[in-house]
Amino acid sequence: MTFLEQIRTPADVKQLSRSELPQLAQEIRNRIIDVVSKTGGHLASSLGAVELTIAIHYVFDLPKDTLIWDVGHQAYAHKLLTGRNASFDTLRQHKGISGFLKTKESEYDGFTVGHSSTSISAGLGVCCGNHLNREDANVISVIGDGSLTAGLAYEGLNQTGDLKHGAIVILNENDMSISPNVGALSSFLSRTFSARYLQTMRNQFGAFLKSLPKIGDDIYQIAKRSEESFKTFVTPGMLFEAFDFDYFGPIDGHNLDHLIDILSNIKDPKDPVLLHVTTKKGKGYPPAEKNPVYFHGVGAFSIATGKSQKSLNPVPTYTQVFGHQMLRLARTNEKIVAVTAAMPEGTGLVEFSNEFPDRFFDVGIAEQHAVTFAAGLASKGLRPVVAIYSTFLQRAFDQILHDVCIDAYPVVFALDRGGIVGEDGPTHHGLFDYSYLRCMPNMTIMAPKDENELARMLVTALDHDGPAAIRYPRGIGMGAQIDPSPCPVEIGKGCVVREGDDILLIGIGKSVCEAIKAADDLEEKGISATILNARFVKPIDSDLILAHASKIKQIITIEEHVLDGGFGSAVLEVLIDGGLTDFSLKRIGIEDRFVEHGPQKILQKEYGIDHTAIIRAAVKMKGLSD
Amino acid sequence: MTFLEQIRTPADVKQLSRSELPQLAQEIRNRIIDVVSKTGGHLASSLGAVELTIAIHYVFDLPKDTLIWDVGHQAYAHKLLTGRNASFDTLRQHKGISGFLKTKESEYDGFTVGHSSTSISAGLGVCCGNHLNREDANVISVIGDGSLTAGLAYEGLNQTGDLKHGAIVILNENDMSISPNVGALSSFLSRTFSARYLQTMRNQFGAFLKSLPKIGDDIYQIAKRSEESFKTFVTPGMLFEAFDFDYFGPIDGHNLDHLIDILSNIKDPKDPVLLHVTTKKGKGYPPAEKNPVYFHGVGAFSIATGKSQKSLNPVPTYTQVFGHQMLRLARTNEKIVAVTAAMPEGTGLVEFSNEFPDRFFDVGIAEQHAVTFAAGLASKGLRPVVAIYSTFLQRAFDQILHDVCIDAYPVVFALDRGGIVGEDGPTHHGLFDYSYLRCMPNMTIMAPKDENELARMLVTALDHDGPAAIRYPRGIGMGAQIDPSPCPVEIGKGCVVREGDDILLIGIGKSVCEAIKAADDLEEKGISATILNARFVKPIDSDLILAHASKIKQIITIEEHVLDGGFGSAVLEVLIDGGLTDFSLKRIGIEDRFVEHGPQKILQKEYGIDHTAIIRAAVKMKGLSD
Repeated sequence: MTFLEQIRTPADVKQLSRSELPQLAQEIRNRIIDVVSKTGGHLASSLGAVELTIAIHYVFDLPKDTLIWDVGHQAYAHKLLTGRNASFDTLRQHKGISGFLKTKESEYDGFTVGHSSTSISAGLGVCCGNHLNREDANVISVIGDGSLTAGLAYEGLNQTGDLKHGAIVILNENDMSISPNVGALSSFLSRTFSARYLQTMRNQFGAFLKSLPKIGDDIYQIAKRSEESFKTFVTPGMLFEAFDFDYFGPIDGHNLDHLIDILSNIKDPKDPVLLHVTTKKGKGYPPAEKNPVYFHGVGAFSIATGKSQKSLNPVPTYTQVFGHQMLRLARTNEKIVAVTAAMPEGTGLVEFSNEFPDRFFDVGIAEQHAVTFAAGLASKGLRPVVAIYSTFLQRAFDQILHDVCIDAYPVVFALDRGGIVGEDGPTHHGLFDYSYLRCMPNMTIMAPKDENELARMLVTALDHDGPAAIRYPRGIGMGAQIDPSPCPVEIGKGCVVREGDDILLIGIGKSVCEAIKAADDLEEKGISATILNARFVKPIDSDLILAHASKIKQIITIEEHVLDGGFGSAVLEVLIDGGLTDFSLKRIGIEDRFVEHGPQKILQKEYGIDHTAIIRAAVKMKGLSD
Repeated sequence: MTFLEQIRTPADVKQLSRSELPQLAQEIRNRIIDVVSKTGGHLASSLGAVELTIAIHYVFDLPKDTLIWDVGHQAYAHKLLTGRNASFDTLRQHKGISGFLKTKESEYDGFTVGHSSTSISAGLGVCCGNHLNREDANVISVIGDGSLTAGLAYEGLNQTGDLKHGAIVILNENDMSISPNVGALSSFLSRTFSARYLQTMRNQFGAFLKSLPKIGDDIYQIAKRSEESFKTFVTPGMLFEAFDFDYFGPIDGHNLDHLIDILSNIKDPKDPVLLHVTTKKGKGYPPAEKNPVYFHGVGAFSIATGKSQKSLNPVPTYTQVFGHQMLRLARTNEKIVAVTAAMPEGTGLVEFSNEFPDRFFDVGIAEQHAVTFAAGLASKGLRPVVAIYSTFLQRAFDQILHDVCIDAYPVVFALDRGGIVGEDGPTHHGLFDYSYLRCMPNMTIMAPKDENELARMLVTALDHDGPAAIRYPRGIGMGAQIDPSPCPVEIGKGCVVREGDDILLIGIGKSVCEAIKAADDLEEKGISATILNARFVKPIDSDLILAHASKIKQIITIEEHVLDGGFGSAVLEVLIDGGLTDFSLKRIGIEDRFVEHGPQKILQKEYGIDHTAIIRAAVKMKGLSD
């Protein structure tokens, strides 16, 4: 039996001797690599945090103490040590364990996460809760240096330093979040840390000062302070001490002995403590060490070669199409600039950034700033395209409304990963964007039914003198041929995909293709459908919808989005405002709950938003048996 | 003719000699005090920024150079110097000039603002725009120390330092934003600044080092660095230099000569520059200097005494009722804690904070953190009530969805200032909350028809095991008697306010009272109305609505909210999902546009959401002439 197999709860970690821990670390690494090579997942960060995780469980007492991981990319070792080794093979599989942290999955997960930079704020809440409950317990928030670029982390630091409870923050610096880190803060961290020799010098300087003959009181005080300030000068601690944290580090995050010693020392703190550890992404698996960006979030791969197992799909992803079209358009319109929030790869903008480095802005994990910054660019006549996943753009709701929409700046929002994203689960599905964007005056919202329409909509959005959002799904397209020079679609106009007499299907985005599949099947059942591709959620094509709804009174709307206030709701508003009364309408979309993780197709079926759901609804509406 | 009267554009400021500027400053102060004593407005901050404003216009060339004020509380002097002296009497009046900055109002307003902490991000966007357009111009972002606590400001600083364009940030430190500042950063700024004597010491220390006999190269280097680090140690510059800004200051923000000299020196920078000025809120008007919190945003007052002109209203505001009920409930339930974002006065929590200092958390202008922090508190069994204005809670959309709703933590959101807020205008109206909260699974949304229902709903929300939002309006209540021990309302249940036969009015929140007024009038016209008080936007009372809608087929919904995806849309979803077809429905709410500033009653009438609009709609529906 391996050490890992003996560990059922974190208490079992403490039963091992220190000298056995490196072996445990190795077993954990092997297990992670083995499983992730089959399931895919966030490999590089988790490999980097193995020793840190062991040391935390060795020193602290969960769940009495609370451990909050940020984002959850680093937490596979934590899962293995908290009773999830046996189920770890189901990682990210439907009905299996989550790729992130979930309080409902384990009492050892201190806070449910998926979006970045929440750990300090949540940890402070837990600290204050413990304090008010008169419970003595440690609260440990682990945060990566990439997550520190988000304003939320800073807001959390600011109050933590102020409240003076003994929160423990562990900064896990691996010099890269998803892409290489950006921002002044990052360069500050590395600049000061790389000046390591100064640390030795500091000691010499201290000795030098002490050796000086008796000096006046003022000078002595200054000298003493100078020594202190010197310490802050040569370590990143300067910044955190400005926030009233006691700063320790940086220490080697792969040295178990050092980790355990220092964690034991800072345990049960009176004041906020920041421990700075440095780790290597992908540690222990050479292909991941060499290419941590690729192995950040990875599909199945061969352990021997590190190569992807997936056969290359001949159909490009929406992301690739977007990236390619951006490049094409930017070549002839120098006003086009691109803004992304730490996701140049994920949003398909790497080529753009290479060809137009001056017109490409990666702002780090800082969606709020990305949007307000884009408004500033637009105010000077530029045409910014802000490419952010639907779920992460939620962070910038106020900036879209307040900084972009009030002045109606022509900022284009490219919402990748709209709809169900699959294995990343409830924290990552992009199921709320129609609702949260639709209430904003001056906003235009469109969704392409296939990749060629995405290309056309990008042209449309860039031609439009106002805010415009294009929402498209994760994954490969429909295999549509892409026009060499895609022409714009008309703003606020949908189109008829096919004509029929018995039922009216109104779809948006990729759901139009589900409607087409359903219509083929319905045809065989003797039901002929008219299909409208709405294209626009806002302004919605009232004329088109009313014209058809006044002829066909049985209507189904289809969207990959929550039903509350979504696309179907917008269609309903049109029908009623248009004075139609004698119709029946079934809105197909996600019922009012969060969607778990799993393959896109399975979830689409399970949540009743695929073509089979349309068929069922149509058959029921027409009073036929299924 | 005064100097001020001679100034038509900022260019005219430059025509004055330096010795004439103090006279101009005095004239500006008099004008501001005179007008604001009649119109109300943001007095204290504007008085504090008079010299800074004059100096900026004296040195820079607007609108070629771009000046971006943060929030806009400080900008009255700017308005007076940029062609708005003549219209300044209409400040905050309907159809008059705005209390904030608006690009549509003046070409000298660099960016439309109202919410805090946008100036650095927007300024960086303008900088990059100028750079790409190959235009040489200065971009000046002015930000108060209070606004620095928001994550957006930090995200902006982080990228500004990284991009190395010559952005100019002026930190206007007045030690207080709206309330006294909070957070470690604030104490850091004041701690280091107050240690002024160390600055003198630094020079002595430098001289001391230079006087030392020849020393080894290492030690010399260290000594040199030490001198530098010493500088950063004794000034707040340390923090900003960590962000790669060149730091200047702190300087006296009321000394025109110093301001003009230093602004002239930092003009046309190559790298990002941060100028730190210190000012006094309310400067030059003793009552405001003495009580800057009261004079932050003030109604009409007597110049001689500083006393409010308004007669005290015997009816309490919703804010007061909320504050009072919080106090009452917290006395018997020690799990109740309150969280606010720099608004203890505005949200009515001052008494709570005095009686329960340990259970009160003012997190500063940091709405994102407020919500995630509250989720952490709730995870430990506390019952946090997060009191934030509807418009400002927009900043925390993602945190509500991701950190509170996924785990369904029982966090109560007290959304003050829901609906039209009046004179603060488009940036501040709380017209989007039903839509943006309604799409979130696990969320409960309610709105009281009067202040007694607010008291009951607070009990309801605190009894409920999940996230719950209560949305209530700005200003005084309906004069309802408040029960000594308000009992909860049933979750998801509305109620019948009156029964009639001809038309069905379904209202939410204060709009229920408009429906009652309308029904009285309609009665006289021979139309008898059933009125439903929906109470809940989510879960909405489908049973009640369907039961009445199946009897009365002419329906009007009324809400003080945008129509897209709002309450009326939720009612519509219920009707259609319930299979009703043969009805007609008119949704009354705000059409799809931003609402300007003006008195609440006038705007409610103008935007067609008051009782007269209901009467018109009912009369039309019933086919009568008006």
